[in-house]
Amino acid sequence: MSVDAVGTARRGRGARKAQRQTRNVTMLPALKRKLPLTEPMTPDQIEKIDAASMDILENVGVQFRDDIALADWKRAGAKVVDEMVYLDRHLVRELIATIPETFTYNARNPANNLPFGRDHGMFIPMTGAPFLRDLDDVRRNPTLDDLANFHKLSHMLPAIHSSAHHIVEPYDHPISQRHLRITYSSMKHSDKTFMGMTTSPKNAEDVIEMCGLLFGDDFIDTHPVVTGNCNGNSPLVWDETMLGALRAFSRRNQPVLCSPFVLGGANTPASVPATVAQLNAEALSALAYTQVVRKGAPAIYGHYLSTVSMKSGAPMAGTPEISLMNFMIGQMARFYGVPWRTSNTLGGAKTFDAQAGYESAMTMNAVLMAGANYMWHSAGWNEAGMHCSTAKFIVDAEMCEMGYRMAEGINWTDFEAAMSAVPDVGPGGHYLGHPHTLENFQKAFFMPEMFDNNSIEQWQAEGSVEITERALIKARAMLNEYEEPKLDDGVNEALLDYIARREREIPAVDALNQDH
Amino acid sequence: MSVDAVGTARRGRGARKAQRQTRNVTMLPALKRKLPLTEPMTPDQIEKIDAASMDILENVGVQFRDDIALADWKRAGAKVVDEMVYLDRHLVRELIATIPETFTYNARNPANNLPFGRDHGMFIPMTGAPFLRDLDDVRRNPTLDDLANFHKLSHMLPAIHSSAHHIVEPYDHPISQRHLRITYSSMKHSDKTFMGMTTSPKNAEDVIEMCGLLFGDDFIDTHPVVTGNCNGNSPLVWDETMLGALRAFSRRNQPVLCSPFVLGGANTPASVPATVAQLNAEALSALAYTQVVRKGAPAIYGHYLSTVSMKSGAPMAGTPEISLMNFMIGQMARFYGVPWRTSNTLGGAKTFDAQAGYESAMTMNAVLMAGANYMWHSAGWNEAGMHCSTAKFIVDAEMCEMGYRMAEGINWTDFEAAMSAVPDVGPGGHYLGHPHTLENFQKAFFMPEMFDNNSIEQWQAEGSVEITERALIKARAMLNEYEEPKLDDGVNEALLDYIARREREIPAVDALNQDH
Repeated sequence: MSVDAVGTARRGRGARKAQRQTRNVTMLPALKRKLPLTEPMTPDQIEKIDAASMDILENVGVQFRDDIALADWKRAGAKVVDEMVYLDRHLVRELIATIPETFTYNARNPANNLPFGRDHGMFIPMTGAPFLRDLDDVRRNPTLDDLANFHKLSHMLPAIHSSAHHIVEPYDHPISQRHLRITYSSMKHSDKTFMGMTTSPKNAEDVIEMCGLLFGDDFIDTHPVVTGNCNGNSPLVWDETMLGALRAFSRRNQPVLCSPFVLGGANTPASVPATVAQLNAEALSALAYTQVVRKGAPAIYGHYLSTVSMKSGAPMAGTPEISLMNFMIGQMARFYGVPWRTSNTLGGAKTFDAQAGYESAMTMNAVLMAGANYMWHSAGWNEAGMHCSTAKFIVDAEMCEMGYRMAEGINWTDFEAAMSAVPDVGPGGHYLGHPHTLENFQKAFFMPEMFDNNSIEQWQAEGSVEITERALIKARAMLNEYEEPKLDDGVNEALLDYIARREREIPAVDALNQDH
Repeated sequence: MSVDAVGTARRGRGARKAQRQTRNVTMLPALKRKLPLTEPMTPDQIEKIDAASMDILENVGVQFRDDIALADWKRAGAKVVDEMVYLDRHLVRELIATIPETFTYNARNPANNLPFGRDHGMFIPMTGAPFLRDLDDVRRNPTLDDLANFHKLSHMLPAIHSSAHHIVEPYDHPISQRHLRITYSSMKHSDKTFMGMTTSPKNAEDVIEMCGLLFGDDFIDTHPVVTGNCNGNSPLVWDETMLGALRAFSRRNQPVLCSPFVLGGANTPASVPATVAQLNAEALSALAYTQVVRKGAPAIYGHYLSTVSMKSGAPMAGTPEISLMNFMIGQMARFYGVPWRTSNTLGGAKTFDAQAGYESAMTMNAVLMAGANYMWHSAGWNEAGMHCSTAKFIVDAEMCEMGYRMAEGINWTDFEAAMSAVPDVGPGGHYLGHPHTLENFQKAFFMPEMFDNNSIEQWQAEGSVEITERALIKARAMLNEYEEPKLDDGVNEALLDYIARREREIPAVDALNQDH
């Protein structure tokens, strides 16, 4: 596209954008689903999965590679042999019973607080990309400025409910101190909810300290304000790093995603229900452990879920079995009365192409119909998580808006009024000028901004702007219009002081030594 | 991509393809759904839509712009005023009660016969594109050879259940005679089911005559062998051309899709449930008319369904309201006990880009979860139907395979065997070498051929082949390997004689005079 064409497109977009500004700077409330969920398992089949998982926990056991966790488990009455923990099903049920089924996620702007659990859902951007495709679609290592841009976009995109944490890995800051700057960036650039780093127990403790500075120590002890993720090593292993981070969060009453990392067929059996049964056992073991650490602490049934290609060993996304497993896992989480996290727009495409579109939409549909509460990786994910695409970030976020509208279900409120237009218009007429249409069109039918539905002639006349460029034009315009939701001066100073002190204490390990 | 890179990719594809040859030349049986459907309406709400539609039929009326239909309706007991027909709800219910809820679609190869209706579904390629994107992704007017290529691909793609009819409009043949060559191409290049032209009553009669030659006149009078489509002009109008074609099919006991052409908000009220109520009234009026023409003739509840952009008037696809309306319409069709046609992978993208992927997958999910029986436009549709993309045709067909696998539901058959692998492997192990994995992987987890899930390094080393080119490489390879399922010599001769005679009788009107 020529520079002139971009200019024209920008002006066109600009005009359109101005018209929709209100929507673009207002966060949608937490999704409250009204569509019936897809529940492919009968109650008997749910119990079959439950029984198979409990058999695993009792007889195969789970490895907790962490001395503190092993001691905790002994005290809690589990059978512990070396690093193996065998959990009786009654103990598991008793422990998970104290996990809250619902709670409120608190944001520093209380208008952005979110009810969570049961039929509420929230969209959270992707995490942890070692590369980005930037505002010019160039693939490179990210910086703190790039991360800030994603936090700003998250703040402005209406269906995105969280600024998350390291959406991209900022390579321009030493890895050992990075968690401090990432957390500060999440807190500073958005007043929505966010996530906390769990890259080590110490890092997790820093996050919690910073949350204390932002919200007040007393407040956070009784209010969930941040989310930590604890990945399991499937099959059936939890390691010291993750368990230490889990404790840092659970001790302070902050929600933890208990997430087995499933590569279906590689670290699970080659069977959809057997994969779910193993994943379920793994999730239950960590969920139960959160309650050993602190009874009543919020915890979220999680997983990273893919199937692997037998040809290459690569993770796949958007496949039918991932949809089926999402439906099933949703049923299991509801069976246990625990909120549920899954992954949204996953995919393995190298560019923002048709593959990326198919993969993301297949996954989003499954996740919505499965009833997920915490829909992580909802924007930007591409190349199996190796890069966050700025263009895809924008389009995914609009897809989340569309998914949100679908999951809200049918609007019957003006049905009678709408029906009265039918005799007015009559056979062979048209509705475009009818008063009911003029009044209701905007809210009756969603008009995606990122999908071009014009004729090819008009599209060509406007410079043949492809979807990647359309999305990047929007991203640049949004960043130009971004207004920072300022932190309180005292809080800001306290956070910066804390970071400065910790950066003096923590030896700077060069990011470039890190192995990706 | 360089020529060398294509060569390498082809060899790679070739090897992979050989391995999967069996799958690629075997048609999947008719989909038999086991996943629960998405049914957002309560029984009360279904009755509300039904009542609103019946009110329209009784009080607003439907325009039948056709003297024969008006006379038929008078005889059937309807109130007729000029071109307006007012249908009493009892008459409507009585008429549609004789539409078969299920039947078998007969193909010339009986192995490709398809049970149809209730929980059975079939995928049919797109129809009527005035342009194609060809085997080199060039956008141009199609020829009979291009159409033949799509019929050949339809024949070979496992999830495609029909060769349809004018997937693309063959511009190299006079428009007045085109239906004969199109029908012959469908019959000749594939022994799956197909569709019949309804571009005029006479053309429809030619199709039926040719079906008589292919299957035998007696056979077709008692066996559905072809599908005709009858588009309505929403709101509430059926025209002479479509009604005449409908009669040609219904008289000879061949199924007709009764399809209001809905541009939500332009020719319907700006309300999801009110749009469904109007569409439902329109579909019912045509369904009822099929039974006036011949009691017991198969007929299919249909529609073309989009919402329009208030900015441009262009049809949109993949929007949340289209999904919701599909869910609702599925419920209405089942309420009346009539099989249901909807449109699958619609979209407005100009190229085979991320927009095309999102739109297609959003629609496919809705259509599958809504329980559609006749999933038309399941491959190739792009640019609001203005072109059929060869690349998208291939990828859509693989998406249909994936949707098919999802809709089939969970495979529990080897659950116990799969679970017994868990203690074998144990914590920290892996399943890749386990006998259960080796035996079951291929069928446990679908491996899409058109999605590239390799690392970016490997993808680049193989020439950075994009999805469009990957799909075109596959299309070329398939066409090279195509084997014609020969027609019986006598039948072939009879068909060619018929075409020759009709081409002498019908004045050749030049295609170039046609207005697109």
